Amino acid sequence: MNFELTSEQKEIRELAMKFARNEMMPKAGEFDEKAQMPMDILKQAWELGLVNTCIPAEYGGAGFTTIDSMIITEALAYGCLGMNTSIMANDLALLPIVIGGSDEQKKKFLTPFTEDYKIAAFCLTEPGYGSDAAGIKTTIKEDGDHYLLNGNKMWITNAGYADLFVVYATIDPAKKHKGITALVIDAKAEGIELGEKENKMGHRCSDTRAVTFSNVKVPKENILGGVGEGWKIAMATLNHSRPMVASSAVGGAQCAMDHAVKYSSERNQFGVPLSRHQAIQMIIADMGIEIEAARLLVQKAAWHIDNGTPNPELSSYSKAKAADMFMKVATDAVQVYGGYGYSKEYPVEKLMRDAKLIQIYEGTSQIQRLVIAKEIFTRS
Amino acid sequence: MNFELTSEQKEIRELAMKFARNEMMPKAGEFDEKAQMPMDILKQAWELGLVNTCIPAEYGGAGFTTIDSMIITEALAYGCLGMNTSIMANDLALLPIVIGGSDEQKKKFLTPFTEDYKIAAFCLTEPGYGSDAAGIKTTIKEDGDHYLLNGNKMWITNAGYADLFVVYATIDPAKKHKGITALVIDAKAEGIELGEKENKMGHRCSDTRAVTFSNVKVPKENILGGVGEGWKIAMATLNHSRPMVASSAVGGAQCAMDHAVKYSSERNQFGVPLSRHQAIQMIIADMGIEIEAARLLVQKAAWHIDNGTPNPELSSYSKAKAADMFMKVATDAVQVYGGYGYSKEYPVEKLMRDAKLIQIYEGTSQIQRLVIAKEIFTRS
Amino acid sequence: MNFELTSEQKEIRELAMKFARNEMMPKAGEFDEKAQMPMDILKQAWELGLVNTCIPAEYGGAGFTTIDSMIITEALAYGCLGMNTSIMANDLALLPIVIGGSDEQKKKFLTPFTEDYKIAAFCLTEPGYGSDAAGIKTTIKEDGDHYLLNGNKMWITNAGYADLFVVYATIDPAKKHKGITALVIDAKAEGIELGEKENKMGHRCSDTRAVTFSNVKVPKENILGGVGEGWKIAMATLNHSRPMVASSAVGGAQCAMDHAVKYSSERNQFGVPLSRHQAIQMIIADMGIEIEAARLLVQKAAWHIDNGTPNPELSSYSKAKAADMFMKVATDAVQVYGGYGYSKEYPVEKLMRDAKLIQIYEGTSQIQRLVIAKEIFTRS
Amino acid sequence: MNFELTSEQKEIRELAMKFARNEMMPKAGEFDEKAQMPMDILKQAWELGLVNTCIPAEYGGAGFTTIDSMIITEALAYGCLGMNTSIMANDLALLPIVIGGSDEQKKKFLTPFTEDYKIAAFCLTEPGYGSDAAGIKTTIKEDGDHYLLNGNKMWITNAGYADLFVVYATIDPAKKHKGITALVIDAKAEGIELGEKENKMGHRCSDTRAVTFSNVKVPKENILGGVGEGWKIAMATLNHSRPMVASSAVGGAQCAMDHAVKYSSERNQFGVPLSRHQAIQMIIADMGIEIEAARLLVQKAAWHIDNGTPNPELSSYSKAKAADMFMKVATDAVQVYGGYGYSKEYPVEKLMRDAKLIQIYEGTSQIQRLVIAKEIFTRS
Repeated sequence: MNFELTSEQKEIRELAMKFARNEMMPKAGEFDEKAQMPMDILKQAWELGLVNTCIPAEYGGAGFTTIDSMIITEALAYGCLGMNTSIMANDLALLPIVIGGSDEQKKKFLTPFTEDYKIAAFCLTEPGYGSDAAGIKTTIKEDGDHYLLNGNKMWITNAGYADLFVVYATIDPAKKHKGITALVIDAKAEGIELGEKENKMGHRCSDTRAVTFSNVKVPKENILGGVGEGWKIAMATLNHSRPMVASSAVGGAQCAMDHAVKYSSERNQFGVPLSRHQAIQMIIADMGIEIEAARLLVQKAAWHIDNGTPNPELSSYSKAKAADMFMKVATDAVQVYGGYGYSKEYPVEKLMRDAKLIQIYEGTSQIQRLVIAKEIFTRS
Repeated sequence: MNFELTSEQKEIRELAMKFARNEMMPKAGEFDEKAQMPMDILKQAWELGLVNTCIPAEYGGAGFTTIDSMIITEALAYGCLGMNTSIMANDLALLPIVIGGSDEQKKKFLTPFTEDYKIAAFCLTEPGYGSDAAGIKTTIKEDGDHYLLNGNKMWITNAGYADLFVVYATIDPAKKHKGITALVIDAKAEGIELGEKENKMGHRCSDTRAVTFSNVKVPKENILGGVGEGWKIAMATLNHSRPMVASSAVGGAQCAMDHAVKYSSERNQFGVPLSRHQAIQMIIADMGIEIEAARLLVQKAAWHIDNGTPNPELSSYSKAKAADMFMKVATDAVQVYGGYGYSKEYPVEKLMRDAKLIQIYEGTSQIQRLVIAKEIFTRS
Repeated sequence: MNFELTSEQKEIRELAMKFARNEMMPKAGEFDEKAQMPMDILKQAWELGLVNTCIPAEYGGAGFTTIDSMIITEALAYGCLGMNTSIMANDLALLPIVIGGSDEQKKKFLTPFTEDYKIAAFCLTEPGYGSDAAGIKTTIKEDGDHYLLNGNKMWITNAGYADLFVVYATIDPAKKHKGITALVIDAKAEGIELGEKENKMGHRCSDTRAVTFSNVKVPKENILGGVGEGWKIAMATLNHSRPMVASSAVGGAQCAMDHAVKYSSERNQFGVPLSRHQAIQMIIADMGIEIEAARLLVQKAAWHIDNGTPNPELSSYSKAKAADMFMKVATDAVQVYGGYGYSKEYPVEKLMRDAKLIQIYEGTSQIQRLVIAKEIFTRS
Repeated sequence: MNFELTSEQKEIRELAMKFARNEMMPKAGEFDEKAQMPMDILKQAWELGLVNTCIPAEYGGAGFTTIDSMIITEALAYGCLGMNTSIMANDLALLPIVIGGSDEQKKKFLTPFTEDYKIAAFCLTEPGYGSDAAGIKTTIKEDGDHYLLNGNKMWITNAGYADLFVVYATIDPAKKHKGITALVIDAKAEGIELGEKENKMGHRCSDTRAVTFSNVKVPKENILGGVGEGWKIAMATLNHSRPMVASSAVGGAQCAMDHAVKYSSERNQFGVPLSRHQAIQMIIADMGIEIEAARLLVQKAAWHIDNGTPNPELSSYSKAKAADMFMKVATDAVQVYGGYGYSKEYPVEKLMRDAKLIQIYEGTSQIQRLVIAKEIFTRS
């Protein structure tokens, strides 16, 4: 076993943390209040090579390992959960192409993302269900040399700015898992209608909308891995995306903890700094323990991917743990600040609002546990 | 023992709940977004007799018992935590007068509140401390036939709209508890400067500001209970205000639970309503248990006051329990809603933001436990 | 509302607490180690009128209200959970007679318990199921002027010493709830075979065994409320027995807390008593809050019964809350004692072992929550 | 980073797990009931090379890394916490020699442990304090060519069977940390008196006693690292011993989980296996998450030692996390079993009793958090 980051990894982390501290954090509050995508900052991140970390080197990517990409995600989330969600959503959308696409598809769809800052959106969730992916109602229907796509998607991150959509649809709802098909469409295709920007509790600078597809033409060569292969692609994507989302929770929690540590070192109460009160020490110690525990689960899940032994159980461990941990750490960080923590002048209330989403998206904390139990009982 | 509300109490509750449902809830989201005091609604509440419940009948009040006032608070908080904070702040400000004022002072200061909708603000917290009330730095100094008040107060609810301030100051910081003095000043007095409205995570429609006093003249007859008597008044006030704040947490939590129950009855997942999933049932059952537990602690603490045996330990029990319970219930209610819960179109994200304040104001959850432990170890 | 005990209730409590402290506590450890029923102590409790509190005055009982019986149970459990389990098991067995029996049956079966110390055992659980009462397999079959009882029961408290068994059987397993029938049999009837005494983690002085019925003759007049009426009787019994069991948890927890408070007042660490460390204060304060919360839920559930409005939801609230609370409080009490807490020379390790059973019997903590959720969703 | 065990490590694990399953588990209940050291089993473990894993190869040890020794500890604790405590206590006693001893001392004191199965006991705790190591009162006093040792030690594992004691004493209590001195004494030395075997809740087969030293002669060459160097040695020992104890918690918890998984796969409730109920799935999933999280913390802390960068913060992370996790997992495992879990016929009640000790010894869960907070605030 070896828990040491390589010197390259340390450099990447430093680069990303520097960007987080210098570019993201100073603007995080402002873009949260305005609920506006900080296009300049996102583009800068892209220029530094911190976006689309899942693109393999052969298609113009930096050739990051999965562990590398977790390191970057943690740092960017430290800077701003909302900005990171937009960045991470690119990966969520591109991963199905990386995983299920042909060489040609990868060249066609991934390479442009390495040449310019482009935005991708991943369309899975629908109004009628959240967690039950096998129940999607968006359909594709063969129509000559292409398919026609019809349906409604909800909570689509990056939707308002996307250059490209990756969509899950079904060839026939009755086929359940076996009908699900992953496909790519150009955002300029006809028949795509965007909903209003969602007014969210947190991750406010990220752009989230409903998307409606009405007879959108999908060229046959845009189907990833073949009709009915979408479920397998989705499952493989989750192995990767869940620790990634978990990693963002670790970053957010570390940020909340660092603020709480600093504040309690400086703020006096009853004549001594807060940090001298055992009641505060207990809170801070728990933050330290649980953040490191979640980080290690993320790293191990990522290592499994890099090692060629992706482990859905461990991916769900990391997601469930990191999300619940972040929710608690952020809520406690506000508590350490007391009244000041409740004000938007200080950064911790935003972290608490941001934390909540991590327990919900990419599989709720409940879904993760059902997945885990299924793995355990199948294995045993 | 008797756990039954009187028929009057049931009527009051129904009246207050009807007002909460019909007048407060439909506007709660809007005023939260605008961060603006809903003066019309507050005035309506006053007209219905739901404001200033602590004013005794002999000074024009409705003659509510403390239990009555908890019932009303719970209902109004069910309607909107932010509006209720503004309403409740009147009580927090008037209670020191009710508790420590002379007959003359009560007549003079309380009666106007029964004749028109007037707003009071309670000034205790200062920038340099939160929980350590004995450490306040705001001073009064004798100056002929009056005192001069100087100092800075923070997090003053209702400050921007107040007709009257109740202020805690010290005659001499070196005297610690023994110097603390409670006093009343007219909001139009010279030397009062208001800070900017705080931009808060929740309770956003309530008005919270810093207040600076610069050589404000305080007539001697405005001192409550005598110079140096403020600590005793403050402690007696807390016995009453803590269950009141706790009661608002119970109301907020009940509202969150009712939403979660309704949503999970209606929303399908995996082919059956959420309410049929044990994972959801466990969450809902815990909400029910803990809300009722907190409510009973509030009622018992209130009963102690009505019974003439105020019990600081039980008051802190109710505050600590209700606040922590509400934070958990509201966070879980968002979870039950999933993605929808994270959107401002649904009411639960506001409840989660609102909940956090209850763990902080009127004594943090940590302070409550220190108070409780002190009572227990002193007693034993 | 009124939270005051009557002077009679205070006397009963004092009597029971005195008995607990003077007679039960000094012997609790010894009988736990020996795993032996302390017949003398149990008989003394009976002589003081602290046993069979559910027997109505018209059948020779003391005429206790349900709240009275909770007060007694809390005190006896304070003395020793194991002894109390034996005492409480009499009530669990007699309640179906009180609730479902005819006047004649009550006279016949209850009165002897008021004339001498007799022991009853309640036979519901079976080897093949625990929580699913509708699935019982023990049968009764008509055979001339009586029924024949056949089946296996598990975890029967008092079995080895019982004078009388109250048994749930079914007239036909296919009928599910509708076949269930409650009946009384004399312990001396032929065909009753007792298993070995169970070697349990806690409640060790109580006698728990399997009981096998082989063609046991059940006179028709021993059926309670008629064939197929057992389910209704069982449900009504649970309304009463759950807060009773909850009350025993409150007593045990209060005992654990009192020990922890005393110990932490006396034991020094880092030069000051443990009670001066905030880390300990937080633990003790939480004990105080949660014990009182559970006690109030018990009292309200009991009040509902006395008030003629039995409330299954509240009964389950009290059971779920009190059991989980006791488990935590007892585990924390051992923690406060440190190494000493782990030794059988000190009383807290026994309390931790005893606590665990309360989360399991009379409906596990999970079952309580399912019951609660069902009530909530049915109501809503 | 690399999370893979080497093939040697996998073999060691397999060997130790096989021993745990085949030799320890079948006897664990029996020796627990008898509260007796299973000398044959312990000797077998020694013969297999699973004891004294801290002894370096140059003194006859197997040359295990710290990670190796964690793997072995986890497996042995899986077999029986009590037996493992006896085995682990050898390491706790020998580590100060490994860390602070001269080459000569190591040869003299460690080598015999590699030649035959010998037992060591570590004497730190005293009756008057538990957590405050700087406050020990056991003294050494120079007396010609040796020292005289006087004092009382408590909770000394292996005391009744020890061949060798490693003792912490002070040259002068007023010197606090600076007076503390570590030394080795032969168990046959005059003046050593053993107390009665402690009657403990769990780890019952391990031998725990008080030890009194009355003018015991300590040859000067038995002082480790010099007079007053004991504190440094103790601190370095804790870096190693805390993850080791944590590792035993991971093993115990894994055992509890494996039992719970198996049981819930086999036991029906409401017509389907327990494993099909979400309420059970949630419990099992949490076990999986938290066990793996604790294991990773242990492994990282161990890796730091092997890497030459011992990290007290991480060592305490692992201890605090693993202990609290095990307590919860074991309590929940009993819950999954229901009534059966409460009986000594099934293995989980013993695990719950065993778990509690881990939160107490080698630094309580509270002490770990104070250590962690100190590290964090010093660093920040």
